[in-house]
Amino acid sequence: MSLIELESLMPVLTGPDAPDFRLPPLEVRERFDTMLAGLPIKDGLAFENAVVGGVPGIWAVPAEAEADLVILYLHGGGYVSGSAAGYRGLAGLIAEAAGGRAFVPDYRLAPEHVYPAALDDALAAYMGLLDAGHEAGSITIAGDSAGGGLAAATVLAAKDRGLPLPGAVTLLSPWVDLDGTGTTLETKSEADPLISAEGLTNCAQVYLGDAHAAAPGASPLYGDFTGFPPLLIEVGTREVLLSDATRLAERAAAANVDVTLRTWRGMVHVFPNLWFALSEGPEAIAELGAFARRHTAGITANSFS
Amino acid sequence: MSLIELESLMPVLTGPDAPDFRLPPLEVRERFDTMLAGLPIKDGLAFENAVVGGVPGIWAVPAEAEADLVILYLHGGGYVSGSAAGYRGLAGLIAEAAGGRAFVPDYRLAPEHVYPAALDDALAAYMGLLDAGHEAGSITIAGDSAGGGLAAATVLAAKDRGLPLPGAVTLLSPWVDLDGTGTTLETKSEADPLISAEGLTNCAQVYLGDAHAAAPGASPLYGDFTGFPPLLIEVGTREVLLSDATRLAERAAAANVDVTLRTWRGMVHVFPNLWFALSEGPEAIAELGAFARRHTAGITANSFS
Repeated sequence: MSLIELESLMPVLTGPDAPDFRLPPLEVRERFDTMLAGLPIKDGLAFENAVVGGVPGIWAVPAEAEADLVILYLHGGGYVSGSAAGYRGLAGLIAEAAGGRAFVPDYRLAPEHVYPAALDDALAAYMGLLDAGHEAGSITIAGDSAGGGLAAATVLAAKDRGLPLPGAVTLLSPWVDLDGTGTTLETKSEADPLISAEGLTNCAQVYLGDAHAAAPGASPLYGDFTGFPPLLIEVGTREVLLSDATRLAERAAAANVDVTLRTWRGMVHVFPNLWFALSEGPEAIAELGAFARRHTAGITANSFS
Repeated sequence: MSLIELESLMPVLTGPDAPDFRLPPLEVRERFDTMLAGLPIKDGLAFENAVVGGVPGIWAVPAEAEADLVILYLHGGGYVSGSAAGYRGLAGLIAEAAGGRAFVPDYRLAPEHVYPAALDDALAAYMGLLDAGHEAGSITIAGDSAGGGLAAATVLAAKDRGLPLPGAVTLLSPWVDLDGTGTTLETKSEADPLISAEGLTNCAQVYLGDAHAAAPGASPLYGDFTGFPPLLIEVGTREVLLSDATRLAERAAAANVDVTLRTWRGMVHVFPNLWFALSEGPEAIAELGAFARRHTAGITANSFS
């Protein structure tokens, strides 16, 4: 199904300059941001710098976006790296698939700003969208990797404050357990070319500061999902974070949430970033966009007649 | 979203003549088959008695079915009840959604025929389809409840024998752990109006005979899913069998399988049988059919251009 074989990308993904989350955080940041800067941007997307809820970031605006369908996209990077600029392309593709536009906040990063700075910024950006007149039900909160965990934590925090909740939540390879108790951290350690338990532990320690690793604001897996919006989780089967995804699905389903979990055979961490090379990337992006659209554009899918 | 509230159906689902799987097996069968006989059949479906691979059953043929797209549908009923006649309507709706037709075998039931009689019959029906010239990749093996477990077990058995595997597997509220170790057997016992741990234990004992409850042929949760076809699992969040579904997804994903798990907020065991009353029923049927079609009609879904 792939345009090219994933294996042929491995030298790029795992070469000497590839991101290595086991390094000191500022070195992680330099390498990861360099990799992100090398990703191509699809034609037809426009970008605008903006401040939403006091948080700077970038709007990604597809050519035919509906103004009232918004994705709040929280980028990955282990809470120590990544940026709105580095993820504007992926967020724009998901927005395009949804028929809306995306805001990617530059939430504060560790080590300069430890937990809960990132969560405070993500929640502020969400409240900023509400203050700007966007209906909560027209908003999807999305994210990948650390940003996927941050997205879930943001919705739980909004729920705790009694805010109206977004219409949908879409997570890509989410990191939701900073306590590192998932079985695939070990069982997939040989299979995963990008992420390791050691790298995750390193980033968790830098991000958490004095916070407990199982605090739901940092590790939403341990949160109360009662009343959580419809949730889509996409993950590759080669990931050490596979069991973060499957356990999150189990946890949310037990709390009566509408959950769709999609595991992608042989795919790696946040594989839609490789949309230009792997056909699975656009397929996953299409699913993420369709799910967001279905739940935020008020379209009911009853194909019986 | 529902056409009517699920709660208003509860007197029918849980009344004095409702199926109760804690009863002796022949009483279970009488009540369950009576309930099935009361389900409406949608217009536009034709039915034909047939024998496939030596196993009697019923073909459900929608008006516009493609002859080369086949669903082998294994019905539920705790291995002690249910029939091709009782499930021909649901199987026909799924076939219609897939654009193909369905064969529903009357596999042998306990207590008259204990394990592995049902598995032997399901596998014989699959081999009969292959012998009749159907390409394995054009076949979906589907099932609900006990039939969902039987469907997964049939694919594992086919794999063990080196047979070509079906193109897709779709399971509805599958019962895949006859050893009864799922957490939701307890945590959902108040929420589930239809199924109880006691009822499942009763049916398991009747079905298993001398077999071990964790034998993969009876409890596919404990099987080896390496190389398993793309798998769709649909389940309601009110079910004691919810953790059978979520654990099956986790187990298959760990073996690198393409898995889609869909949990339906507030829905009950095999809720698509209530398609005539609940809008979630047709939605789930549409998803089951679309998944089967996508993987067996050779259609690749790449919505990027």
